[in-house]
Amino acid sequence: MKAKVFVTLKEGVLDPQGKAIQHSVELLGWRGVADVRQGKYFEIVLDQSLGVEEARALVERLASEVLSNPVIEDYRVEIEAV
Amino acid sequence: MKAKVFVTLKEGVLDPQGKAIQHSVELLGWRGVADVRQGKYFEIVLDQSLGVEEARALVERLASEVLSNPVIEDYRVEIEAV
Repeated sequence: MKAKVFVTLKEGVLDPQGKAIQHSVELLGWRGVADVRQGKYFEIVLDQSLGVEEARALVERLASEVLSNPVIEDYRVEIEAV
Repeated sequence: MKAKVFVTLKEGVLDPQGKAIQHSVELLGWRGVADVRQGKYFEIVLDQSLGVEEARALVERLASEVLSNPVIEDYRVEIEAV
């Protein structure tokens, strides 16, 4: 089974990396980009022995306790049965 | 219009950050995680004036020329009409 975790900065938290990318794009002269925010993305391979509910519980815990900082970040989990 | 870009290391490229996470999870004693790979995730807000095809072309170019390193990374683009 595979899981995907998306970690993004909460609304309102300053994202200097995203702003730097947006600024670079403006310097390149490309028009049309109004905002860029950078987040993190994780692909997690889980043991085949886990059930879907077990897998979801494990990945939710991983996302909230290891992969994200709950003070400034939100996360989203997707489970993919292969 | 919004776009999402996912940048991941190509198959076979070593991912020390992912390995470090996997190792930490093992040290925590959590069972069931076979592999972790870390990637980058971008949320891009585009000007309303752009059409879907125009937006896709812009974001594809952004992903390949600015957000990813084509030597070691793959990218995937999703366009979301809001």
